[in-house]
Amino acid sequence: MSFRFIPGRTYRMPVVFGPGLGPRQGDEGRKFTSPDSHKTITRSVSFLTNRAQLEELLPEEFAVRGEPVTTVFASYMTEIEWLAGRGYNVLGVTIPVTFTGKVDRAVGSFLAVLWENLTDPILTGREELGFAKIYCDLPEPRIHRGVTHCTASWMGFKFMDMTLFDLTPAPAAAPSAAQEDGLLHYKYMPRTGAWGEADAAYVTLTPAATLQRVEKEAWRGQGSVQFHRATWEDLPTQYTIVNAFHQLEIKEYRGATVVHSVGAKDLSDQRILR
Amino acid sequence: MSFRFIPGRTYRMPVVFGPGLGPRQGDEGRKFTSPDSHKTITRSVSFLTNRAQLEELLPEEFAVRGEPVTTVFASYMTEIEWLAGRGYNVLGVTIPVTFTGKVDRAVGSFLAVLWENLTDPILTGREELGFAKIYCDLPEPRIHRGVTHCTASWMGFKFMDMTLFDLTPAPAAAPSAAQEDGLLHYKYMPRTGAWGEADAAYVTLTPAATLQRVEKEAWRGQGSVQFHRATWEDLPTQYTIVNAFHQLEIKEYRGATVVHSVGAKDLSDQRILR
Amino acid sequence: MSFRFIPGRTYRMPVVFGPGLGPRQGDEGRKFTSPDSHKTITRSVSFLTNRAQLEELLPEEFAVRGEPVTTVFASYMTEIEWLAGRGYNVLGVTIPVTFTGKVDRAVGSFLAVLWENLTDPILTGREELGFAKIYCDLPEPRIHRGVTHCTASWMGFKFMDMTLFDLTPAPAAAPSAAQEDGLLHYKYMPRTGAWGEADAAYVTLTPAATLQRVEKEAWRGQGSVQFHRATWEDLPTQYTIVNAFHQLEIKEYRGATVVHSVGAKDLSDQRILR
Amino acid sequence: MSFRFIPGRTYRMPVVFGPGLGPRQGDEGRKFTSPDSHKTITRSVSFLTNRAQLEELLPEEFAVRGEPVTTVFASYMTEIEWLAGRGYNVLGVTIPVTFTGKVDRAVGSFLAVLWENLTDPILTGREELGFAKIYCDLPEPRIHRGVTHCTASWMGFKFMDMTLFDLTPAPAAAPSAAQEDGLLHYKYMPRTGAWGEADAAYVTLTPAATLQRVEKEAWRGQGSVQFHRATWEDLPTQYTIVNAFHQLEIKEYRGATVVHSVGAKDLSDQRILR
Repeated sequence: MSFRFIPGRTYRMPVVFGPGLGPRQGDEGRKFTSPDSHKTITRSVSFLTNRAQLEELLPEEFAVRGEPVTTVFASYMTEIEWLAGRGYNVLGVTIPVTFTGKVDRAVGSFLAVLWENLTDPILTGREELGFAKIYCDLPEPRIHRGVTHCTASWMGFKFMDMTLFDLTPAPAAAPSAAQEDGLLHYKYMPRTGAWGEADAAYVTLTPAATLQRVEKEAWRGQGSVQFHRATWEDLPTQYTIVNAFHQLEIKEYRGATVVHSVGAKDLSDQRILR
Repeated sequence: MSFRFIPGRTYRMPVVFGPGLGPRQGDEGRKFTSPDSHKTITRSVSFLTNRAQLEELLPEEFAVRGEPVTTVFASYMTEIEWLAGRGYNVLGVTIPVTFTGKVDRAVGSFLAVLWENLTDPILTGREELGFAKIYCDLPEPRIHRGVTHCTASWMGFKFMDMTLFDLTPAPAAAPSAAQEDGLLHYKYMPRTGAWGEADAAYVTLTPAATLQRVEKEAWRGQGSVQFHRATWEDLPTQYTIVNAFHQLEIKEYRGATVVHSVGAKDLSDQRILR
Repeated sequence: MSFRFIPGRTYRMPVVFGPGLGPRQGDEGRKFTSPDSHKTITRSVSFLTNRAQLEELLPEEFAVRGEPVTTVFASYMTEIEWLAGRGYNVLGVTIPVTFTGKVDRAVGSFLAVLWENLTDPILTGREELGFAKIYCDLPEPRIHRGVTHCTASWMGFKFMDMTLFDLTPAPAAAPSAAQEDGLLHYKYMPRTGAWGEADAAYVTLTPAATLQRVEKEAWRGQGSVQFHRATWEDLPTQYTIVNAFHQLEIKEYRGATVVHSVGAKDLSDQRILR
Repeated sequence: MSFRFIPGRTYRMPVVFGPGLGPRQGDEGRKFTSPDSHKTITRSVSFLTNRAQLEELLPEEFAVRGEPVTTVFASYMTEIEWLAGRGYNVLGVTIPVTFTGKVDRAVGSFLAVLWENLTDPILTGREELGFAKIYCDLPEPRIHRGVTHCTASWMGFKFMDMTLFDLTPAPAAAPSAAQEDGLLHYKYMPRTGAWGEADAAYVTLTPAATLQRVEKEAWRGQGSVQFHRATWEDLPTQYTIVNAFHQLEIKEYRGATVVHSVGAKDLSDQRILR
């Protein structure tokens, strides 16, 4: 007898071996709810940039919200429950936006791209959530004489350096989530054979309201970030992305943060905006 | 001004940096046509198995064709043009099938799963073509005293061993592609928030007719393959896949092949079957 | 003019580029003295074993001290000053011993082997200190549902699993170093061409008295450890080592510890015992 | 009963588990003699440089022989018998020299440094043979549009780029080994605790006469090589080495070669020169 889908379960290629396993669906369909999962260290640097350049990176129906301040963040995660206690790292770039759809409106941050150093969450994130995840190597940062140095590379080409320094302990941030609806994404899946057409093309939202992350310690300080110009030979699948950030004007740095936190929601409340 | 799609170009997340770069679309939209691309060594082992077990791994509208013989193949590729001369490796499992759709009919092989050790082709393959690609580590094989030993692992858990031996030079295979329509796939993309529903769910075909692979040398001999039982802790995203192959009965080995080839088409003729 | 040695500086191959760089000698010959270096998490499991088996692993002039209790420890280090803020991991096995040389006597632990996942400290450690360091992969442990799982592998062959569980906070250990002279090693360097002869063969001591490690947090609990039987094909340079531990009788586990510490001395007080 | 050395066998730390396993001594002490071992692709680029700069890289008793032409070579090896069929890669720099010792004289090439991407042969090579081996990452070269591009890096810092192009098939080289005595090395092992003193400091020779390498195919053409300036932070254990090559004047390139070969001797004829 052929393979059949089990109703109510989420699938991902290859489908014929049963429901897709990932952050929102474990062995035997169980949910991951441990509050001890996801020990995370997030390091971020923000800078004031050129509004017109940011707008070029936003889909229609999006507009830059307030000052054109971009944030580059790198998160280093361990003890992740859905990976049976393993970890992985991510590097993302966000832009403050308002979204004005035909039906929905939202204020939040647009996740322009999210590099991750593990393929499995890249697949679940792209396909189930619409996160613009792609792969790169994200080694542990170097920390030396009060300076933290994060890097990112792809097959030996280092395309980003980020440094954080003059860090001093900061009180836990007031949950800024309160004023924002969440993180915004543009999901897109091409249609096979009909090149240029899409199987899916819509905006998705990661609601801020239900975050389960508990901040343990935090620091504020200075930082800088550089994306390095790449040729097609250097990054044949990503040079356009890296060069867009390389060209982004840095008018003024707006500080750096380091946050140690525990916990993460499974993002099963991710939803389409219209 | 916001980002806008360029008509006629293929996109992949993140879309806002321009057309997706990959095997079918390079820098400035160029095609990759070098006949020297893709130096490939493919090693495969086939075995007669249980028909009922294979049928459980086939979507509706598919049936096992002829004897229930499964093939496990590992390809090690270098000098790939669309990666600017880099390489990567893959491990796949195929089942001989007939497809009888509402409109189309095809005979060929169903690609149940394809592991690859590089994320970039996994993303293009899943989203543009419908290949059931997932990640694993595929180190160079060990070759010693006439025995070739291939392995596959995920984050330190070795889930497959394949050995080939008693290999003797074989005349170039008559292009069996002639009798087959090609490689068959089941493409599936979940719909965000509507868990259990799909943005896309259809069968795709890689036509055999236009293959540009030139066989340089070939050997035939004996081989064996073992998939190792995994727990959820071992392979939290893939244990169901590996265990399905672990449980697949091996009634009789049907030989091994090694083929050295050059060339590959860009698969832009991939199409949906109905 | 030819290369010449600078008197008073320590050298390591290749010598012709100047003094050897490492933990005891940095750029321009400077010493590394930062108390913030070496953030370390050490996880260890001890067990009572067979005295005769341990004795076979001890050089002449060594004897098992007290109960034949072996300890396997894995340390995960970050923010190391001499590596400009990078880190690496180690896995060691110690045996409690007395050393009775022609001149010197010492009580301490014999470091039978120390695997490390970075070559540079392996070279400095072997050649300058006499530590029996060799290479293996030491991924970050999995931590899930209160169980910590450490592994070690070499080119894809996992040769050790160690688990720690039922961990409860423990008061900082009384510095046991007080009663011990330190860590003992057998340094050996073969003589080129005179196979079977040695350029160096002597016992060395890492004095306990001058340790600069500050314990920050500690836990005690239960644990287990398994070394997996290896063939020559699995571990062609290390199977004899791993199999010796595989065969070591485990009569009774004697508990596990986890210690978070900061600081490390540069081991420049390492010395030869006679 | 304590561990005892077996007479006539070669040892390496850790000694207490029995004779050292490596290229010259396998399981049960057997020798590796397969003529099919060591499938090797060697790519090299030579250039005329400054004589005075080269002399600074030579130990006493060495002098530059003939024109000051340095060769940088990268070898990619598979199917190595003593590694049970695995492979590894190396990157070396040689200088043509004459050696005039108190007793011995030799003409050949001085191996200033040899990077390797596997620790096990680094240890056997340094300690048994006196090769100046150190670690770096040596990924498979990129080969694209007739250009081969080799790179070397250490923990994410790429310190060398080498390109080869305009390659045309070349007749097998007349065995130049005939006129040379072999490859020369300066072995040095520091003495523990007596910082600045040595356990061993002598010149060793790899005799050319007994090479068992069979050349299968060869190409000649053009090439270039660049070592990139490094800070202590970039390469805390190797910046002095890389910077010496970075500063080496390139007066004129003297061509590139690619050689495919099979076979290697076990170097058990390595000997001390006086």
